[in-house]
Amino acid sequence: MSIINTISGNTKAGKDFLKSLRNREESVHQEVTKQVEIILRDVKEKGDEALISYTNQFDSKNIDKKNICVTKKEIDEAYENVDKEFIDAINLAVKNIKFFHEKQKRNSWMITNENEVVLGQQIRPLQKVGIYVPGGTAAYPSSVLMNTIPAKVAGVRSITMVTPPSKDGSINPNILVAADIAGVDKIYKAGGAQAVAALAFGTETIDRVDKVVGPGNVYVAMAKKSVYGNVDIDMIAGPSEILVIADENANPKYIAADLMSQAEHDKLASSILITTSQDLAEEVKKQLKMQVENLSRKDIILHSLKNYGAIIVVDSIEKAIEMSNDIAPEHLELCIEDPFLSLGYVKNAGSIFLGYFAPEPLGDYIAGPNHVLPTSGTARFFSPLSVDDFVKKSSFIRYSKEALLDVGDKVIKLAETEGLTAHANSIKIRMQDNISSKN
Amino acid sequence: MSIINTISGNTKAGKDFLKSLRNREESVHQEVTKQVEIILRDVKEKGDEALISYTNQFDSKNIDKKNICVTKKEIDEAYENVDKEFIDAINLAVKNIKFFHEKQKRNSWMITNENEVVLGQQIRPLQKVGIYVPGGTAAYPSSVLMNTIPAKVAGVRSITMVTPPSKDGSINPNILVAADIAGVDKIYKAGGAQAVAALAFGTETIDRVDKVVGPGNVYVAMAKKSVYGNVDIDMIAGPSEILVIADENANPKYIAADLMSQAEHDKLASSILITTSQDLAEEVKKQLKMQVENLSRKDIILHSLKNYGAIIVVDSIEKAIEMSNDIAPEHLELCIEDPFLSLGYVKNAGSIFLGYFAPEPLGDYIAGPNHVLPTSGTARFFSPLSVDDFVKKSSFIRYSKEALLDVGDKVIKLAETEGLTAHANSIKIRMQDNISSKN
Repeated sequence: MSIINTISGNTKAGKDFLKSLRNREESVHQEVTKQVEIILRDVKEKGDEALISYTNQFDSKNIDKKNICVTKKEIDEAYENVDKEFIDAINLAVKNIKFFHEKQKRNSWMITNENEVVLGQQIRPLQKVGIYVPGGTAAYPSSVLMNTIPAKVAGVRSITMVTPPSKDGSINPNILVAADIAGVDKIYKAGGAQAVAALAFGTETIDRVDKVVGPGNVYVAMAKKSVYGNVDIDMIAGPSEILVIADENANPKYIAADLMSQAEHDKLASSILITTSQDLAEEVKKQLKMQVENLSRKDIILHSLKNYGAIIVVDSIEKAIEMSNDIAPEHLELCIEDPFLSLGYVKNAGSIFLGYFAPEPLGDYIAGPNHVLPTSGTARFFSPLSVDDFVKKSSFIRYSKEALLDVGDKVIKLAETEGLTAHANSIKIRMQDNISSKN
Repeated sequence: MSIINTISGNTKAGKDFLKSLRNREESVHQEVTKQVEIILRDVKEKGDEALISYTNQFDSKNIDKKNICVTKKEIDEAYENVDKEFIDAINLAVKNIKFFHEKQKRNSWMITNENEVVLGQQIRPLQKVGIYVPGGTAAYPSSVLMNTIPAKVAGVRSITMVTPPSKDGSINPNILVAADIAGVDKIYKAGGAQAVAALAFGTETIDRVDKVVGPGNVYVAMAKKSVYGNVDIDMIAGPSEILVIADENANPKYIAADLMSQAEHDKLASSILITTSQDLAEEVKKQLKMQVENLSRKDIILHSLKNYGAIIVVDSIEKAIEMSNDIAPEHLELCIEDPFLSLGYVKNAGSIFLGYFAPEPLGDYIAGPNHVLPTSGTARFFSPLSVDDFVKKSSFIRYSKEALLDVGDKVIKLAETEGLTAHANSIKIRMQDNISSKN
């Protein structure tokens, strides 16, 4: 049996495969929705009491009001439990992530028109942000950096992290060190829907925030969707994908490795190669088989490649990009000569990796752009997490008396057309007072 | 009985009032949620058939597959049914809205670092956008402009409008003319949750879009929240508010008029004056009583002022702004001397109106900034609708072989710390091949 599906472009099989990609959402059972709503309401009404009770039920029996907040001492101890190479790598990542995100900062602006009309837009950081960090095997320090640093660069004053404690009440030291270096202000030992509720509504211990970001399991995702509107949230994440577009000069060894780097994430992950070279397609298949033997997550990789992986052979790079635009992948590698020429034709993709030496894991960890990306085709309308996600805008308007008198009739006309006479009145009353003084 | 509540700043009554503001959400009955989910599923599964069946059930019995799309002829007829002054006013509004939103446009960017590392961010318009426009008395042409023009300025190729037809199958001519002038591409006679579903999932007649924007009743709001993730949506809108901060030089006549211009929207609307002048507070009350007599929406205004209106007297403008930041109003008028000095202290507000001659209705219709604003305290984290809402970003990364070899060890360290060996493998395999050739 083949390790991965091979499909010719433009066939029915190709179309069926694309369709299967769109339907690979995990089905959320009504049961989960119901449970999440109960947890949210409990924490909203009972605060810490409910938060701690759920934490002790799901995560650790040792959590109480006194130890739910991570102490300076715990952070100091964490530093003793991580190695120097890890800290060096984190420091380089922080430097590069800061560098890239600094370029995203925008200024407030204003313009003055005739008649002393001033219009503008004020841009300000959110005041308080909450970051969710999963526990257990999905406790990724890189994720802490990618969620925290854009908020810091935006100027957010208070960053609160929540993460479920392990059975003994401790937090993974890599997570604590990454959070400390990135500049998280407070860390609470809480996870699941109950932690999202605490951030969204506030408890006696945890301050209500303006926005909740960060990945989590289905309970966390449902809770975030439910509190949206009470607070802002980041995008809704689904299963992730990599799409590699390769020409005949690409190295099959590298491409196989890159496909599997995505496939190892989870069984619903999708890894797709679209290439103009039949020979390359064959070589990549061989490499997948060889390399997978040495990888610790072999089972997940095989499962994901078999169900949602594909190698598609097409006639031209243009056709490959057209298919990619339809899939709107989270990660897109352009393993082709002169990828910059093709960049402008990419309409939908979260992050784009150019050339033979920009593999996806480089972007996951070190390069600087954010690794929180739109998944499952949502790159059609969502964007990578950025400084923009941690600011809000206000517009402002200043009119002189003369400027208002000039446009007053038109405002009144529109307000009256809409049947809003009190709107019209607010203009009329100023005009009555001032028309005589004007003439 | 008083027409509006009078409260001293900093008292328990003041705090209770703020609390009541936060709880004025309309409660959504489980019944609505259930019904919306059924409608969404029906349209997703049965397409046009379900869409038309619901339209004929709720709106007009005359709609079928052939006439659901508004024709050129219908638009031409609409022009004959609106007056010249209306068209003139719309044209001025379009000009000013375009002018302001053009300033919000951003460019893609890229930077080249040492070792031929190139990083950048590509900004592209969404491809297809859907705009919901309510029917009946809430059919506001200004709203059509405010939702359509930012999308046009962003470069969106296809803008589809949906709006419920009246009983005889027609659409308000003001709406049709505004849509035509603003540049809407297609208009369909459909409303409610079924129209949102058609935009989000697509039907045989209506193309699936990337984002759905525009106001609507509770069914529309619930439907939008439910399809979020399948498509993007604009913010979740709640009851709206105006907050006027006034000093002793402000004109009580104008302030009363402005408070009522918001109060007329609906019974849950909130109109608040915070002033440093007890005399002004008294005068405004008198003016409210006098002016309300001439307004067609008197009942709504009285209801809204009584329940959610307030006049709060405070010691200083600083204190007034502090309270305003806590309320995070949709509209904030700074009816004070030199409002520009205070602007920078405003942390949370949708749109800010500066001075004595910038009443809120000016911003609703003509000034140029968007009137789709964060309501109900969500200015803490949401922003006015803008060109940013109709673009998406992709980041891109290019590394040379040398640059990758330089950071490879650190990527591998982080990947291995996270237990992601296939991520590490993607870097290792390139390093093994090239380290020897490098040295």
